[in-house]
Amino acid sequence: MSAVESAGGETADSPPSYLIQSVLMPEAEGYATVDVWLHAGHIAAIAPQVTPGQAAEVIDGRNKLLLPGFVNGHTHSSQVWQRGLIRPLPPELWLAEVFDTAPALGVEELYWAALSTGIETLLSGGTCVVDQVLLKRGQELESVAAIAQAYRELGLRALIAPLIMDEPLAAGLPQGRSRSDATTGDSGAILEWMAAIVEQFHRPATGIQIAVGPTGFHRCSDALLVGCATLSDRYQLCRHTHLLETRAQRQLAYEKYGRSAVAHLADLGFLNHRTSLAHGVWLEEPDLDILAETGATVVHNPVSNLRLGSGIAPILKCLQRGVNVAFGCDGAASNDAQDLLEAIKLGMMLQTVTEPDYQRWITPRRAIAMATLGGAKAVNLAAQTGSLTVGKAADLVLYDLSHPSMLPLTDPIQLLVLGRPMQVVDRVWVQGRQVLAQGQFQTVDRQDLYEQLRDRRLQFNLNPRQTLAQIEPHYRQMLLD
Amino acid sequence: MSAVESAGGETADSPPSYLIQSVLMPEAEGYATVDVWLHAGHIAAIAPQVTPGQAAEVIDGRNKLLLPGFVNGHTHSSQVWQRGLIRPLPPELWLAEVFDTAPALGVEELYWAALSTGIETLLSGGTCVVDQVLLKRGQELESVAAIAQAYRELGLRALIAPLIMDEPLAAGLPQGRSRSDATTGDSGAILEWMAAIVEQFHRPATGIQIAVGPTGFHRCSDALLVGCATLSDRYQLCRHTHLLETRAQRQLAYEKYGRSAVAHLADLGFLNHRTSLAHGVWLEEPDLDILAETGATVVHNPVSNLRLGSGIAPILKCLQRGVNVAFGCDGAASNDAQDLLEAIKLGMMLQTVTEPDYQRWITPRRAIAMATLGGAKAVNLAAQTGSLTVGKAADLVLYDLSHPSMLPLTDPIQLLVLGRPMQVVDRVWVQGRQVLAQGQFQTVDRQDLYEQLRDRRLQFNLNPRQTLAQIEPHYRQMLLD
Repeated sequence: MSAVESAGGETADSPPSYLIQSVLMPEAEGYATVDVWLHAGHIAAIAPQVTPGQAAEVIDGRNKLLLPGFVNGHTHSSQVWQRGLIRPLPPELWLAEVFDTAPALGVEELYWAALSTGIETLLSGGTCVVDQVLLKRGQELESVAAIAQAYRELGLRALIAPLIMDEPLAAGLPQGRSRSDATTGDSGAILEWMAAIVEQFHRPATGIQIAVGPTGFHRCSDALLVGCATLSDRYQLCRHTHLLETRAQRQLAYEKYGRSAVAHLADLGFLNHRTSLAHGVWLEEPDLDILAETGATVVHNPVSNLRLGSGIAPILKCLQRGVNVAFGCDGAASNDAQDLLEAIKLGMMLQTVTEPDYQRWITPRRAIAMATLGGAKAVNLAAQTGSLTVGKAADLVLYDLSHPSMLPLTDPIQLLVLGRPMQVVDRVWVQGRQVLAQGQFQTVDRQDLYEQLRDRRLQFNLNPRQTLAQIEPHYRQMLLD
Repeated sequence: MSAVESAGGETADSPPSYLIQSVLMPEAEGYATVDVWLHAGHIAAIAPQVTPGQAAEVIDGRNKLLLPGFVNGHTHSSQVWQRGLIRPLPPELWLAEVFDTAPALGVEELYWAALSTGIETLLSGGTCVVDQVLLKRGQELESVAAIAQAYRELGLRALIAPLIMDEPLAAGLPQGRSRSDATTGDSGAILEWMAAIVEQFHRPATGIQIAVGPTGFHRCSDALLVGCATLSDRYQLCRHTHLLETRAQRQLAYEKYGRSAVAHLADLGFLNHRTSLAHGVWLEEPDLDILAETGATVVHNPVSNLRLGSGIAPILKCLQRGVNVAFGCDGAASNDAQDLLEAIKLGMMLQTVTEPDYQRWITPRRAIAMATLGGAKAVNLAAQTGSLTVGKAADLVLYDLSHPSMLPLTDPIQLLVLGRPMQVVDRVWVQGRQVLAQGQFQTVDRQDLYEQLRDRRLQFNLNPRQTLAQIEPHYRQMLLD
């Protein structure tokens, strides 16, 4: 077919056309060498040979692999500033140390952190990120503006889910509620500025969405969770929250609700096909059926789970029960890298610990499907992205198979997933716009970012670790003694 | 002090002197900024300020971290050619697939594979590798010559441990011995060419050692194991073998010996302070005491263990009982990367799965100590290397802390271990010789290697997978049904 003949539907805003020639793409088994034509933001043709139209920039796809972009289903961009800072501690104590050492971040720091997160997402094969991010108090709208600006400049798809909660840290521990005031925030006021953020920044067509992001049942009142669900329905927003990252949270749910957290969230109407749940390490069997029925997604964050000792999420069981699973990096304070390929590798391999039968293990190809189509489902974009399908948006990544870290070239997908690829992302398109070409960002000078990360000296409050000291005795008593 | 005044003991063969100024090094807690003087192959001085002598090349150590080199305690260099090729399978079936798909490697391919392994070791912070390598049958001495040449050219310390065995693959499975001839090799003949290899290539002063490397009790007769121990004593060679990588091996030991593999190896006299044991995933409590008493080392290969579903090695228990632990990558067919920093990261993090009390977790600093001094102990070099100590050999790595993957610069060691550093190895010295400077190898053009890995088309025999088909039903019956 001819690209010129088939052209149409182009608007003034349409990205240029691209024709990627002779590129490797995975088939059900093995690989095919194809031409792929990107036009008007979409995959317009995939065929053994496509005739380039004059309007198309022709790209040599030889020795390259084309895959749909991954979705980073869970991170917290502002933690970039605490990368490498927090000691190995379990989640509840880790969070206390994050609080204790947190530098006072301004809106500018939020911008640079989001830019860093976006760059690392793109450089590791991602085209979309779910950023559950803590906003600067009192400057919530300015914070989202800065974060959205970073992702818009990069050209990355992003779901910005402001972290909200109305219960204090101590309430997140079993028998911890009595130790502090039950609420710390006014859910009504929070939902009010959330609605304002949605009105101002939720622009799905541009690739920037707002999602509701209550931090988790363990620190949210029912009123806040229901309010989030309502807001989400009004604007068709995605919903994103932490769920059962720790054993303590499972225990807390029974204490707080007399039933599992999943059963409670389902009753509140929080779970649906637009809902993604970070972690799910301590899900129980009956929970899985609820998740499958409601269409909610579990986001697997294996690097963070291992670093914090949260346990191994029952991802294989989720898949066996028909629960959608995506991958996430989690924030840089609990995954000091933000590399999707690392998360995918560890995520698939970790399942071998709990499943002796290798015939049930996640294969590298299945891991890629989870990171792409599974990720797209997690953000309710599976109809538009997540696979190499004609008609879908061109959210695509071109990998350089001639890079030393991909040699010798045996099975490209196995090398990509099981190896340790470095700098193999050659080009990235998001909604058909080329945001990275030959390893270079098209719209952003990343040296600016590195200068900021190098030179911006933030004040970390390293001593005393007050919150940690307050919580630790209770934590040890409840969970270790 | 002055470098010139203190100079002495230099010979014609001595490497040049280096003075690394104002470099960060770890102290018991925190970091110190020091000058480090390397002279005559050794660390000659570490002090807040050392006056450079005329003979010393001065190196700016600012924004750099100096650590002892890591030891890659276990790999199989020839597997480089099968990187990315083998599907996710448990060790016994994985090995069958490795056999089935193995290309016919010539001595040249062994050279390039060793060069690749050496380069990846150096680029990920290693200064020494234990290469338990399969030699070309009938060309055993030529094989070792090629492998030794690769490491010598790079300037890497290496222990070359030819893989030897005298029992067939099927004998390595429980109830598998009756299924095949009990022996496939003549231990006497094997030990004869091993002795010739030792005579010709064991040159500890140059950094190249030969070690005895029986593949494991599961495929070796007692005669071969005892012969290895005897040879090792005659030349003071290190001993290296696989041990209890799989549950099947533990079962097999009781079947074969009526007791644990460790008890049997101890009785054979195979375990001593020069012995390192790869994996140890299925060690039992009483085994640990034997290992501690004999001074043997367990080499932890977490990436390979996860990829093959071997289980989680009881590394914390080993450390608690006083057993030395080092890190290894394992071969590229089971760890498709050969990155020591990845192995260290995963190795420390995996222990959180089996130990709920964070106060017992391996910290990044302890992980570094395991990879350096623990690694040095594994190869019986702890008196000479493995720490930043005046008088020890200068086996040192200088890390660039200004690299984007190390930003923002919070805690350098945490960033190095818990992050995903890329291209941060700036300089490496081995025995005081600078083998890598500003990221460039001093004696080898690595583009030559990449061309070979790219263009040397080996014949892989992908179908039928005959050995796998033979073994799989028995495997499933013994271990899964």
